[in-house]
Amino acid sequence: MDTIRVAVTGAGGRMGREVVKMVLQDEQLTLAAAVSPSAGPVDAGTLVGLQACGVTVTPDLETALANAQADVLVDFTVPHAVYDITKTAIEHGVRPVIGTTGFTPEQIEELDKLCQSQGIGGLIAPNFSIGAILMMKFAAQASKYMPHVEIIEYHGDQKLDAPSGTSIKTAELISEVRQELRQGNPKEKETIEGARGGHYDGFRIHSVRLPGIFAQQEVIFGGYGQTLKIRHDSYERAGYMPGVNVAVKKVMTYTGLIYGFEHVMD
Amino acid sequence: MDTIRVAVTGAGGRMGREVVKMVLQDEQLTLAAAVSPSAGPVDAGTLVGLQACGVTVTPDLETALANAQADVLVDFTVPHAVYDITKTAIEHGVRPVIGTTGFTPEQIEELDKLCQSQGIGGLIAPNFSIGAILMMKFAAQASKYMPHVEIIEYHGDQKLDAPSGTSIKTAELISEVRQELRQGNPKEKETIEGARGGHYDGFRIHSVRLPGIFAQQEVIFGGYGQTLKIRHDSYERAGYMPGVNVAVKKVMTYTGLIYGFEHVMD
Amino acid sequence: MDTIRVAVTGAGGRMGREVVKMVLQDEQLTLAAAVSPSAGPVDAGTLVGLQACGVTVTPDLETALANAQADVLVDFTVPHAVYDITKTAIEHGVRPVIGTTGFTPEQIEELDKLCQSQGIGGLIAPNFSIGAILMMKFAAQASKYMPHVEIIEYHGDQKLDAPSGTSIKTAELISEVRQELRQGNPKEKETIEGARGGHYDGFRIHSVRLPGIFAQQEVIFGGYGQTLKIRHDSYERAGYMPGVNVAVKKVMTYTGLIYGFEHVMD
Amino acid sequence: MDTIRVAVTGAGGRMGREVVKMVLQDEQLTLAAAVSPSAGPVDAGTLVGLQACGVTVTPDLETALANAQADVLVDFTVPHAVYDITKTAIEHGVRPVIGTTGFTPEQIEELDKLCQSQGIGGLIAPNFSIGAILMMKFAAQASKYMPHVEIIEYHGDQKLDAPSGTSIKTAELISEVRQELRQGNPKEKETIEGARGGHYDGFRIHSVRLPGIFAQQEVIFGGYGQTLKIRHDSYERAGYMPGVNVAVKKVMTYTGLIYGFEHVMD
Repeated sequence: MDTIRVAVTGAGGRMGREVVKMVLQDEQLTLAAAVSPSAGPVDAGTLVGLQACGVTVTPDLETALANAQADVLVDFTVPHAVYDITKTAIEHGVRPVIGTTGFTPEQIEELDKLCQSQGIGGLIAPNFSIGAILMMKFAAQASKYMPHVEIIEYHGDQKLDAPSGTSIKTAELISEVRQELRQGNPKEKETIEGARGGHYDGFRIHSVRLPGIFAQQEVIFGGYGQTLKIRHDSYERAGYMPGVNVAVKKVMTYTGLIYGFEHVMD
Repeated sequence: MDTIRVAVTGAGGRMGREVVKMVLQDEQLTLAAAVSPSAGPVDAGTLVGLQACGVTVTPDLETALANAQADVLVDFTVPHAVYDITKTAIEHGVRPVIGTTGFTPEQIEELDKLCQSQGIGGLIAPNFSIGAILMMKFAAQASKYMPHVEIIEYHGDQKLDAPSGTSIKTAELISEVRQELRQGNPKEKETIEGARGGHYDGFRIHSVRLPGIFAQQEVIFGGYGQTLKIRHDSYERAGYMPGVNVAVKKVMTYTGLIYGFEHVMD
Repeated sequence: MDTIRVAVTGAGGRMGREVVKMVLQDEQLTLAAAVSPSAGPVDAGTLVGLQACGVTVTPDLETALANAQADVLVDFTVPHAVYDITKTAIEHGVRPVIGTTGFTPEQIEELDKLCQSQGIGGLIAPNFSIGAILMMKFAAQASKYMPHVEIIEYHGDQKLDAPSGTSIKTAELISEVRQELRQGNPKEKETIEGARGGHYDGFRIHSVRLPGIFAQQEVIFGGYGQTLKIRHDSYERAGYMPGVNVAVKKVMTYTGLIYGFEHVMD
Repeated sequence: MDTIRVAVTGAGGRMGREVVKMVLQDEQLTLAAAVSPSAGPVDAGTLVGLQACGVTVTPDLETALANAQADVLVDFTVPHAVYDITKTAIEHGVRPVIGTTGFTPEQIEELDKLCQSQGIGGLIAPNFSIGAILMMKFAAQASKYMPHVEIIEYHGDQKLDAPSGTSIKTAELISEVRQELRQGNPKEKETIEGARGGHYDGFRIHSVRLPGIFAQQEVIFGGYGQTLKIRHDSYERAGYMPGVNVAVKKVMTYTGLIYGFEHVMD
């Protein structure tokens, strides 16, 4: 069987290095290209602490895609660049597997059409963690029975955006099934502005930022004399890799852009 | 519409008092009898801090059932007495709603047959809390994807049995769907006996007993770089009452003994 | 020994009823008066589900204080009324034990002078719980070593003010010892306003409001590869009563107004 | 200023590699030797993913110590070997900094005498994490006021011993100050053996083992209507390194063997 040829952007970043490692360690995958504006030129294997693999890290995505005959591009870079990267990949017939948030609905729709016209698959997912996806699914289910809910998400103190992509995705899923309800006392008063968190469709999202934390989220439901909590703690970047590995293989099997890793789970 | 006539055993106990209150405060229910070996004779309403209701607490269950024309008996008393109480109720044509654990599978089967032959319904449930039932359901679902699991349950320090009925029920539900797996290091060694908790079908249950806690349970799943936690905290006896209220009404609508409140939820 | 004569305001409220119960159940205390604008006239003992005690609930504080020869007044009523109540008590030579927040520093200073001039003690405390006070003490200590901190507090969904008095008190204690530090990424951006919580001296406070919760608080410290959490869960109003009982006796032994229950602990 | 020369045992293990990295990245430290029975011969820098450093990993401790002119030996290897390693180091005049548990009190006393006679310092500590040490300190303090306590510790599923060294150390510190008290209902009955955990001086320790967890511990105190929880989560081996770095420098400044990192903190 032919291996799947994978290009990786942001190969010098922390998440990108994990992706390069994962690709190099799976016999069913081949590293086709490693792109990083500043990390190279250096062998991509050496860069991530493995043996040299013969692929040199290159600064330019266009050139890499033109030469690499990649099947899939994996990108976990920053939000502001990701739309262009995704579009470029699709135009080269390379299936995007994107782990960055920050797309507008219009952008997703446009990229889906582009995938359709190229006859290839694509995946954008704010979260590749099976545990996180179960958390979101259970949270949505619970909100049918216990509509009083708040979300608290915890990330490292250098994270730029608040609330997190996962918490917004969770809130969306809850909103689809939860009865309309504006929680809290209508006369509630914040003596310190912002204390009650961000407002999303009648309930609240709170973002905690502290060093030492990678990615955690708790969804809390309150009812008569009780609370129900669903919590996912992600301890390290490598925790996403089993999901990314599945995604790289799945994206070869369908046409069009899928948003959300849960939709490619069996 | 006729009201449902409800008899309550253990009416002088803490849970029994909550049941008496709940019955007296619902217009669709009538208190038919309140049984307690030691609390009476006193008006049952006065006993629970409400207005006198004309029903005197009585020490003898048989007499009460013979005279009360009860439709339903609610019992939250201690395990050792509950089998006899349940059987007595059914023999008098009174539908049992039982919140005590400690039945053997054989006893449940026998009581089911008895209900069938009397043409009445019955319900035995270790937990009447909607949040607890969601916790159990989600725990079972998660164990399909994340088979490494442990249960920690927390109750007041005067609780007699460990582990709790709810934790055993949760473990049963998990075992039905989880792949067979003996967790932990095979060479694991307890330097203090019992530290690793109780063993259930390849995984562990831990029972914490502390004053100030009513009833809490956390089911923890561990996987590659992540944990998923599903936790239910029950803060007071009254938290069961919405569920008991539903059960009293539901038990009028079917024939046979049902085990588990989740099976009478819509 | 003479008993301490205790007047209770808000006797018809949920906290006030617990105070009345506590006073009636302690032989060293005598209920001198029970004030409630709307609950009476009814015997205060009957009101709280105990035996009649001979004290009728009365609507007017001035009249009650004029006649009751009270030593101590206990008040857990709403913030907007409490300043006047406290001042009135002191003017009648009655020692205030106040469990409501919402005083300004100027008001506390003024009430202290009034206590001094009357030669009596007084206590204002946002929290009478030993566990909560330990939480605050430990949080302050930890912030010396781990200056990256956030506070999350949880209360019932009908609470009016956010953040809670306890969380602000905790933040004050932390600020006194924590090195100056503006946490988080300077370029951080809230895509939903308020998500990052309320700002207090460089760190954040988050307020969760859900039914079923009484009063909980977690202080989280983040550092290199680790987090430290100090959490206090208060499950019921009665949990304050051991502390209130201590306070009523302590306030007899000193002169001047003390702010914070921790300062009257041994 | 001369640098401190550090030898590392178990250099091929996961913790040992972190120590080698930490030493190579601190200008005040010099890697004197890296010992591993199976990882070499390879340059120690290359082994840990850094640049070659000129020190080749060697299998024999005696030879390494004879030639390396080390000031300090850092060891995080398995319990059964650590006593001999520590003794050997001291006999060579090399200060041991040991992160492994499993010493008997007699062994510690003997090693202390050996350090004294050599005129050098030494440190044995089950935990080098500042957060963990604060947790233990606070837990001991809280147990004075809230004597009802249980400990739950969480580690990876391949950990051999239960309960953890940190939890036993915590239990010791609690026992020194907590009033004697046998917790729980005297008639308590385990329906599944071990459910109530391991018994330590009247209270319980529970050990959870799951993949994805590195090292976590929660100490829970229960009292009238409340719980207090002190929790430390350690997410990665590297989280110990700031403490190990401090220890390596501190051990140069005193004579005799100290047990517990808290005793070398300022």
